[in-house]
This record gives sequence, structure tokens and C-alpha cells, in this order.
Amino acid sequence: MRRTLAASGILVCAVAGQTAASELRDAALEYFQPLPSTLMAPSGNAITPEKIDLGKALFFDPRMSASGVFSCNSCHNLATGGDDNMPTSIGHGWQKGPRNSPTVLNAVFNVAQFWDGRAEDLKAQAKGPVQAGVEMANTPDNVVATLNSMPQYVDWFKGAFPEEADPVSFDNFAKAIEAYEVTLTTPSPFDAFLNGNEDALDETQKAGLQLFMDNGCVACHNGVNVGGHDYYPFGLIEKPGADILPEGDVGRYAVTETADDEYVFRAAPLRNIALTAPYFHSGVVWGLREAVQIMSISQLGTEMPEEEIDQIVAFLDSLTGEMPEVVYPVLPSETASTPRPTGEVIAE
Amino acid sequence: MRRTLAASGILVCAVAGQTAASELRDAALEYFQPLPSTLMAPSGNAITPEKIDLGKALFFDPRMSASGVFSCNSCHNLATGGDDNMPTSIGHGWQKGPRNSPTVLNAVFNVAQFWDGRAEDLKAQAKGPVQAGVEMANTPDNVVATLNSMPQYVDWFKGAFPEEADPVSFDNFAKAIEAYEVTLTTPSPFDAFLNGNEDALDETQKAGLQLFMDNGCVACHNGVNVGGHDYYPFGLIEKPGADILPEGDVGRYAVTETADDEYVFRAAPLRNIALTAPYFHSGVVWGLREAVQIMSISQLGTEMPEEEIDQIVAFLDSLTGEMPEVVYPVLPSETASTPRPTGEVIAE
Repeated sequence: MRRTLAASGILVCAVAGQTAASELRDAALEYFQPLPSTLMAPSGNAITPEKIDLGKALFFDPRMSASGVFSCNSCHNLATGGDDNMPTSIGHGWQKGPRNSPTVLNAVFNVAQFWDGRAEDLKAQAKGPVQAGVEMANTPDNVVATLNSMPQYVDWFKGAFPEEADPVSFDNFAKAIEAYEVTLTTPSPFDAFLNGNEDALDETQKAGLQLFMDNGCVACHNGVNVGGHDYYPFGLIEKPGADILPEGDVGRYAVTETADDEYVFRAAPLRNIALTAPYFHSGVVWGLREAVQIMSISQLGTEMPEEEIDQIVAFLDSLTGEMPEVVYPVLPSETASTPRPTGEVIAE
Repeated sequence: MRRTLAASGILVCAVAGQTAASELRDAALEYFQPLPSTLMAPSGNAITPEKIDLGKALFFDPRMSASGVFSCNSCHNLATGGDDNMPTSIGHGWQKGPRNSPTVLNAVFNVAQFWDGRAEDLKAQAKGPVQAGVEMANTPDNVVATLNSMPQYVDWFKGAFPEEADPVSFDNFAKAIEAYEVTLTTPSPFDAFLNGNEDALDETQKAGLQLFMDNGCVACHNGVNVGGHDYYPFGLIEKPGADILPEGDVGRYAVTETADDEYVFRAAPLRNIALTAPYFHSGVVWGLREAVQIMSISQLGTEMPEEEIDQIVAFLDSLTGEMPEVVYPVLPSETASTPRPTGEVIAE
């Protein structure tokens, strides 16, 4: 009789636990969506296997930079969470970039690209770093000349853009890279939880998720990318010091020239955030706990208790996903007509 | 009857062709060996799957450099023939290295490593660039501290060196990289020919192989790596100009301090030579035809006819092998105790 009662008790607890988890999941689904089970379809760029393969080659090809040193993968390294683990990237001529390199993983789900959203999509973004003097320091003409000099690349462009008379173009270079980047998504325990596997998060992570919603983090960090979907002032309640929020970088104001957009940035997408230190557009904060503390004060105006921060960090860990398996590409080899690399730094 | 005769004629030709090919193959086997069908066993470093996997992670990890910019793969890029396609590599602080980066592919078969053979094997070589101020600019202590800061790396070292009390060491870092590099071999059509498939080379390539032996190229470029097995003066018969053979780089003399070793270098291993322009230790010659012309004059004292050069280049193309399939590694993520990257250049 006693044993039966005890067993019933366990049963009741288990059911209660499940109910709580279900409620938490229902609440979470008000704010978040799991990764979709199929590839996204970016506008004006039909995704095909040929385009994905070409884009992968381009993504890993250091000859897309003037010096031959940097590929897309240099600053968005798929071996290390899709970024470069530096405050700001080192580029052409050992120059430092102005902002922390964001992860390429799941970037397709962001409302727009770059910290200030100045590129409307991944194909627009792909044209940026390759031309930036402090990054890859190349020109569209030189990229196209490089590609045209290698017959294998010309064949791959023909295969990826079969309807086009002149497939090797800078636009198509960017479209192929976008096609590859669309595949770079990382299903995580949090997706499993949202999809109905209530054991995918442990109790600490569930408590963290609850706090993430209750404390208001979710106001900016929501949607499929847990951020990345809209723009907000950094220092909504209390402006951080100039070490964290350098005064010279006014964020989205440079894009919109609207006074309200001073120090406004795209809310950071939080998938794989545990892998992508250092944090913020300034890249000066190395610890995730510290980053949560700073956010709590600057955006919510509260100093969260240590235990709550731990729980939120545990929840953020559940956003670390499974990396896509990447077979390293074998790239076409140069020919006599391939433009030669140059490390020369041209003053702008 | 006529048909029978004709058929017999074809048969005779075919047999004659086969005999010629067999003779060529027999002659070639006097000088060359095909790649072995199993992994080489470097001295003092038993090769295990765990060690290979660890070595692959280290090979691709840019955090092995002080700046976080360069991995082994930066200058020995497996996507582009195992080298970096530059005259000399760009390293820490945008400094230029002194000599052309040799391919890592099949490097295990070289008599010793570097252009001057100053490292006796791959594990000795692996310790060089990581410490060179113009390359990765790191220190053994900082490498070990970096590795110890990431529990996943510590586990991998334990798995790769299970007998050792203190497995995370700079020596074991180098041994693991050697273990990975041992796997980087590229079976080529020339191997198939040496192994008995006489159709693996076309007629031009066979003519080129014959010339390669008859004209004396084979005196230095022989063995399994078609070079890489011994040291010879660059400019044996006629010293090339200072543009190709810079006067300040005395080659192996710096290692042995023997007068006979001035301007002596390890004969370049020629596997995948079609993929690894630019050529020579100075890296100033971009065309393979031009490189063969220069070799012909400087080492053999003859100006080979254009047709012979074409045939030799065709033979060299048959040394381009099948690249190993490389699944790009997912690396451990940094922790609070990981030493931070620094791009600072310290004057030496």
C-alpha cells in the first residue's frame, strides 16, 4: 500500500513537471520559433546544389582577397562558431576592422546584415568585406578577372547560373555565397525543446528561459534567431562606458541619418553565443556572464542576482547548435592569367 | 582475309605499344617509387586515429598563432595544393617570410623539412612556424596554455597520448600535427602508371617521362616524391640571376656551415607541382614552363626545345594527385582562461 502511494506520488510529480514544461514551452512559443526544417529561400536567388557548392568554394577561397591571405572563412570561421574570436578582425595590411565580426551561422534569419543592418540580405553583405580596404581590399573587377582566369570556376558558374549568358559576375559571386550561407544553420537543444522534446533543456536552462522572458531580455532577443530581428539603442536605460560603447561609432545612425538611431544596433542574434566571444559590436567583453550583466544594467536597468545570471547563461548554452558538416573544398588552381596577389596597402 | 590481316596489324601495334610502355615503366621504376598503400610510420611517433584527429584540429586552429589569424593551413592550405600560392607568405604583423611556402602534401616523404632541410622530420618542422616572429609569432608556453584552457583539447590530448601523465605539451602538439600530415598523400596518375596501369599516362606524358629521365632531371628529382630526397646547388651549371636566386639566401650553408653548401637547397619534390606556383625557394616564377626552362639552363646547361618542355610539363601534370577528403574540424571554444589573441608586433 505504501509502495503504491509512493509510486503514485512519483507519477503525480512527473505529470506536474511535464505540465510545467509544457506551459514554459507554450510561453516560449509566443516569442521564439525553432529553426525551420528546410532551407530558407532568399529573395531573387533560387537555391540549387550547384550554387551551394560554388558558394562554398568562394567562401573558402583566399584568392578572393587582394593579398591572397583572407577568405570569408578567415573572419567567419566555421571551425570556431562562424566568427574569428577577436575583438575586431585583422585584415589587409594588418589593419583592424571597426566592429566585431558576427557569426555567419544562422545569419540568414537576421532582418538584415552587419551590426547596423546596412546590407539588406546575405548577398548584399557578401559584397562588403571583399571590397573593404581594411578587410579583403579587393575590387569587383579583380574578383571577376580572378574567377574568369580559372576554367573550373567558369564551369561552376555556368552550372550554378545555367540560364545566363554571362554567368561569371560579381552579383553571381555574391548570390552563390548567399546560397552556401543559407545552409549554415545549427539545430540546438532549444530547437528540440520548442519542437516538443521537453527533456532537451535541463532544469537550470528552463529556469533561465523563464527568466529570459520574465526579465524582459525577450523584448529584443526573440524570433527564430533569438535576436537579430530589429534595432534597439545600446544603453536603452543606462548608457555603458566608452570602453564598451565607443563614442565614435554611432551605429545605425550612419545608415538612416535619423537622430533616433544614434547608438542603435541590431539586437545580437544569440544562437551559438557561447562560442562567439568576445561580445558586443566593440568586441571588448570576453565573458558571457559579464555580457549578460552589462545587458541587464544597460537595457533593463536592473542588476540581476548572480543566480539568475547563471540560469540565463545556462539557457544561452542551450542555443549552441550542431555544426553543419563541411567537407573542405578543393579549389581550382591558378593559371597564367590569374591576377597575382598583392599585400600592398593603398591609402584611401 | 584482309580484315584478319588488318586486325593482326592492330594487335601487333597494340602489343608494341604495350611493350614500349612496359619498358618505360621498367626504366621509371629504376628512379621512382609509387606512393605506398599504407601510412608511413615516422620515427618515435606511433600513428593512431586519435592522434590524427587531434593533429587535424591543431593544423586548422588559428589560435595556435599569437594573433589568432594564422593556422598551419593558412600557408599550407589544403584547398589550394597544400601551399598558399604566394611568392613568400604573409605572416604576423603583415611581415613577409623569407622563402616560398612548400606544400604539406606528401611532405612525409621528404628527406627533411624546409628548403634547407633544417628540420629532420615533420614533428620538428611543426615547431618552427608557430614560433617564427614573421609567421605565427607564438611561444611554446602560450601554445600549451591555450590548449590547457580548453577542456576538449585536454581530453583529445589524453586520448592521443594515453600513456602519458602530462599529455598536453609542445612536443605532443608537434607529434599530433605530424600524425595528421602523414595522412596527406595524393595518389596520382603517375602512381597508377608505376603500379602497372600503362594507360594512366597519355602519349605526351610518356614522352615527357622519357625526356625527364634522358635529359637528366631525374638526377635530382627522383624517388617517391620526385625530388625532396637530397640537396643540390641551385645553379649547378649556370647560376641564375639574383632575381631568382637572391644572393642573401645561401640555403643549406646556414644549416651546415660547410662551404660546399652555399646556394644548396633540397631538390623540390614535384608531386602536385602544377598546383603550387609560384616556384623556387624565392617564389618569383609563376609559370611551370618557365620554371622548367630555368632548371634546364641552370642545372643541365642546355636550352631544351619548346616541344620537349611541353612534354615534360605534361609529365609533371601527371603528378597532380587526388586530394584527401578533409572534413573541416569543429574546434573547442575558448574559456575564461584562454590567452587572448594579440596582433602586436614585438621587435626581436
